[in-house]
Amino acid sequence: MVSEYKPDFPEDADFEKLIDKYGEELGVLQREAHELDIPIIIVFEGWYDVFIGEVINRQLLPLDSRGFDFHFTDAPTSEENKIPFIFRFSQKIPPKGKIAVFDRSWYMRGLIEHLLNDSDIFGCSNLSKKSNIEAIFTEPANKEIINSPKFERMIKTFNDFEKTLSDNGTYIIKIYLGARKETREESHKIWKKIMPYNIDKRSTEKIYKKDIHVIKEVIEKTNTEYAPWNLYFVDKNIDEVTAGTMQIITQQIKKAIFDVKSKRALEENSVCALPKQNLIKTEGPLDLVDLSKSYTKKEYKEKLKKYQKKLAFLHYSLYLNKKPMVLVFEGWDAAGKGSSIKRIVQAMNPRYYRVIPTGSPTDVDQKYHYLWRFLDGIPPCGKTSIYDRSWYGRVMVERIENFCAEDEWKRAYDEINHFEKVMTNDGVIVIKFWMHISKEKQYERFVARSLNPLKQWKLTDEDWRNREKWDDYYAAVNEMIEKTSMKDAPWVIVEANDKYYARIKVLKTIVERIEEELGSKMEEMDFPVIGD
Amino acid sequence: MVSEYKPDFPEDADFEKLIDKYGEELGVLQREAHELDIPIIIVFEGWYDVFIGEVINRQLLPLDSRGFDFHFTDAPTSEENKIPFIFRFSQKIPPKGKIAVFDRSWYMRGLIEHLLNDSDIFGCSNLSKKSNIEAIFTEPANKEIINSPKFERMIKTFNDFEKTLSDNGTYIIKIYLGARKETREESHKIWKKIMPYNIDKRSTEKIYKKDIHVIKEVIEKTNTEYAPWNLYFVDKNIDEVTAGTMQIITQQIKKAIFDVKSKRALEENSVCALPKQNLIKTEGPLDLVDLSKSYTKKEYKEKLKKYQKKLAFLHYSLYLNKKPMVLVFEGWDAAGKGSSIKRIVQAMNPRYYRVIPTGSPTDVDQKYHYLWRFLDGIPPCGKTSIYDRSWYGRVMVERIENFCAEDEWKRAYDEINHFEKVMTNDGVIVIKFWMHISKEKQYERFVARSLNPLKQWKLTDEDWRNREKWDDYYAAVNEMIEKTSMKDAPWVIVEANDKYYARIKVLKTIVERIEEELGSKMEEMDFPVIGD
Repeated sequence: MVSEYKPDFPEDADFEKLIDKYGEELGVLQREAHELDIPIIIVFEGWYDVFIGEVINRQLLPLDSRGFDFHFTDAPTSEENKIPFIFRFSQKIPPKGKIAVFDRSWYMRGLIEHLLNDSDIFGCSNLSKKSNIEAIFTEPANKEIINSPKFERMIKTFNDFEKTLSDNGTYIIKIYLGARKETREESHKIWKKIMPYNIDKRSTEKIYKKDIHVIKEVIEKTNTEYAPWNLYFVDKNIDEVTAGTMQIITQQIKKAIFDVKSKRALEENSVCALPKQNLIKTEGPLDLVDLSKSYTKKEYKEKLKKYQKKLAFLHYSLYLNKKPMVLVFEGWDAAGKGSSIKRIVQAMNPRYYRVIPTGSPTDVDQKYHYLWRFLDGIPPCGKTSIYDRSWYGRVMVERIENFCAEDEWKRAYDEINHFEKVMTNDGVIVIKFWMHISKEKQYERFVARSLNPLKQWKLTDEDWRNREKWDDYYAAVNEMIEKTSMKDAPWVIVEANDKYYARIKVLKTIVERIEEELGSKMEEMDFPVIGD
Repeated sequence: MVSEYKPDFPEDADFEKLIDKYGEELGVLQREAHELDIPIIIVFEGWYDVFIGEVINRQLLPLDSRGFDFHFTDAPTSEENKIPFIFRFSQKIPPKGKIAVFDRSWYMRGLIEHLLNDSDIFGCSNLSKKSNIEAIFTEPANKEIINSPKFERMIKTFNDFEKTLSDNGTYIIKIYLGARKETREESHKIWKKIMPYNIDKRSTEKIYKKDIHVIKEVIEKTNTEYAPWNLYFVDKNIDEVTAGTMQIITQQIKKAIFDVKSKRALEENSVCALPKQNLIKTEGPLDLVDLSKSYTKKEYKEKLKKYQKKLAFLHYSLYLNKKPMVLVFEGWDAAGKGSSIKRIVQAMNPRYYRVIPTGSPTDVDQKYHYLWRFLDGIPPCGKTSIYDRSWYGRVMVERIENFCAEDEWKRAYDEINHFEKVMTNDGVIVIKFWMHISKEKQYERFVARSLNPLKQWKLTDEDWRNREKWDDYYAAVNEMIEKTSMKDAPWVIVEANDKYYARIKVLKTIVERIEEELGSKMEEMDFPVIGD
């Protein structure tokens, strides 16, 4: 049971003065949290409408505007509606040292959009026009909602989302502003008076009674250790409510600062060098690959034509069917990622695909959770994103080069699986290719590159440095493939010593997957393809 | 007259081979342009539908995906529709060293949205649902379009936009793919066959004849020295068309590279030290300010209450009337920008305002035109953005500290005036405040800050360094105010030696401006305001 927060006010408190006092404290705490690089999320939810906006504004006033972002959560924009639900909020997480304040959040929107959409809450659906707060109060009956698998999935999505943030150092403060009966009636009267056009005629009381059970259930099930709820009743005047919420927030930020400081002190005092990365080469998926597979030039040309033709039609069908697709390309340097991608996009209309190259993170990227910078590329309904390297860098280069700590890359397997699950749950097709070549073949290609004036630029010192760590990468990739292969988001190891074989395998895999996804084999059709 | 581009092909050219050759060349040129940090824009416009998509895809294939972005220009999203028209495209300009390819652009959308919207093309309007390509072919009659002031304004907006980009080193390549009659009929037939559901029943010929005059007029009027059109007829097979456009693009990028190289060589050879910034203190607006203006505490409290109450109501009215507002705060260090902003936002609902602090540009920002990073803050309809420092840094700190070259900051006055004009033309309320104090008052406040433990953090070494350049700043500000004061976007100099007076003047200015904008004095009303 989430218990009610009882503020600890001095007797006969002067709330105006208390607000000033907390405000001053908040300013100081914000700077301290900023210096410690702590990201903080403050979520406000509550009964409609208990003057949440006004209460929040008072918390914001003492803050330094360079240090916080405010997000008012309304119905999604048309673009937001085309990506998996939770990513709309992932995009708004605070960077290191900043505070993000949410006036309503994934909770409110989850409930509304959950109830509205019969088939698939988080799908690429055309949300009906009534995607507003009123729709929550229609059907289906509440007990049906609470017991539905969709409801469970929503709760899991929220908890996974908050856990990932918390694991990576974000402090989450969640405040639910409850209203007792008299307050609700009072608030209804005031709103009716000052904004008659904004308040509908129905009895908010009737709505409340029908609805509060669902909200209670959500609160209980998302009241976790890493992101607990603060339930606070607002049967007071607005000054007292403000002082109460400010007390909650200042206390929690103090706690965050204390936790971080003690954790860092411990780390400093422990005798700890970076653990030497001695990866042991164990048997794994890579050891089973038959790199001798190949096609003749004639076979290649025929198959290329056949599969590109199919892909052209199927890719356009994906667009018509509003199916998004994510293709991830990882592999050894010089394994042929680029040339395989080229054979794919030759068969696609550039209006419906994007190739997203992954370089080193910018200084802005580095202020966020490592998955954040990939959100921008997540395809909206009907579009395809092709990642040329991806978030898997976390468990390869970042692991091997010690760019992140051991617990960070170990946690990353789960985080990545959640991340991809959010997509596949939402109907995004996800295929991950590991382009595999032998160490000898890589050497051969490096040498060929260094001798070809048109391709010299492709070969850098870093490529040679990476090559020296071949065995470490080999072991890391084996582990990665084992830990992140999922039924809906499989790893496909591509035998790439022979370029012809590799390109066809990639094309064929994509074609077959789309056919599977679209339900039936599409009939062949004369569709224009750009020749090789 | 824009003349037709005649490609220079060898006799009996094998176009497939030519495409390969140009492709290789394009890859090399892209890398060279990247190394020279040249941003390039390639715009494709043309008759609907001459397989523009396919032609473009072939140009993109040889490019390195790290080095270009592709933008398919469709109807605006609901969010794009809430900001001034051209900013939708400004947001997509390429950073240094990158290529941005537009499949249709501001030209197509300008025409469509221009014709659709009777009252104000670039306004915060609810574009009707038929905001698609078909709507262009309805009313009004074409000669009315061409002669309308709205049409002229559109052309000016496009030319200003392209000139600013060009002045700052962006190369713009514009290609119009024309179609002769037989080609149009042929293309219509093909599309009808492969995508019958996508082609409407009307005769495209009838549409063409009605419409081509407007397009011709646009092409002629935007065929500038800094961004000329390449008119190319596609009465050929798709291979030949592709080879032709690739020839245009390779030639132009070569030219860009040559121009940049010769310019840089000249600069290196010229005997040139940075000009010493000896700003001469001349009479200007700042010299007329009466800094003795003040209010007593009692006067202040009364006026504060009165104006905040008004502002609360008026700000909500702006939201209801979908009016966006931009407030810019510039001023001396310790002049009270922050505390004035605080008094404003106390009277506003955080759902409808944002405070945007301006720090040093990030490494991403630095790859773009200096105005680019402010686009994200431009308020959508009904919202207010408050800039705490702004784009005026270009003609103050960047000028004085030599962060930009003399021709850059000199050009900035015009660029800023264009930038603000785009907003005010679109109905955005723009007010710019210069918070003015005396040098003695600044010293007094610096000392007070350094002695107050809660405010010490506000005072940095940089503040003292800036103070040493007081006279340079004084002259630069005088010049800035003279060169960028516009009727619709005025500078308001705030006498800020007395904080009470300053805060009230700011509030009063905003209140009066909104009243003026909303047409009639709004009656006073009991609206909830958060107390001081």
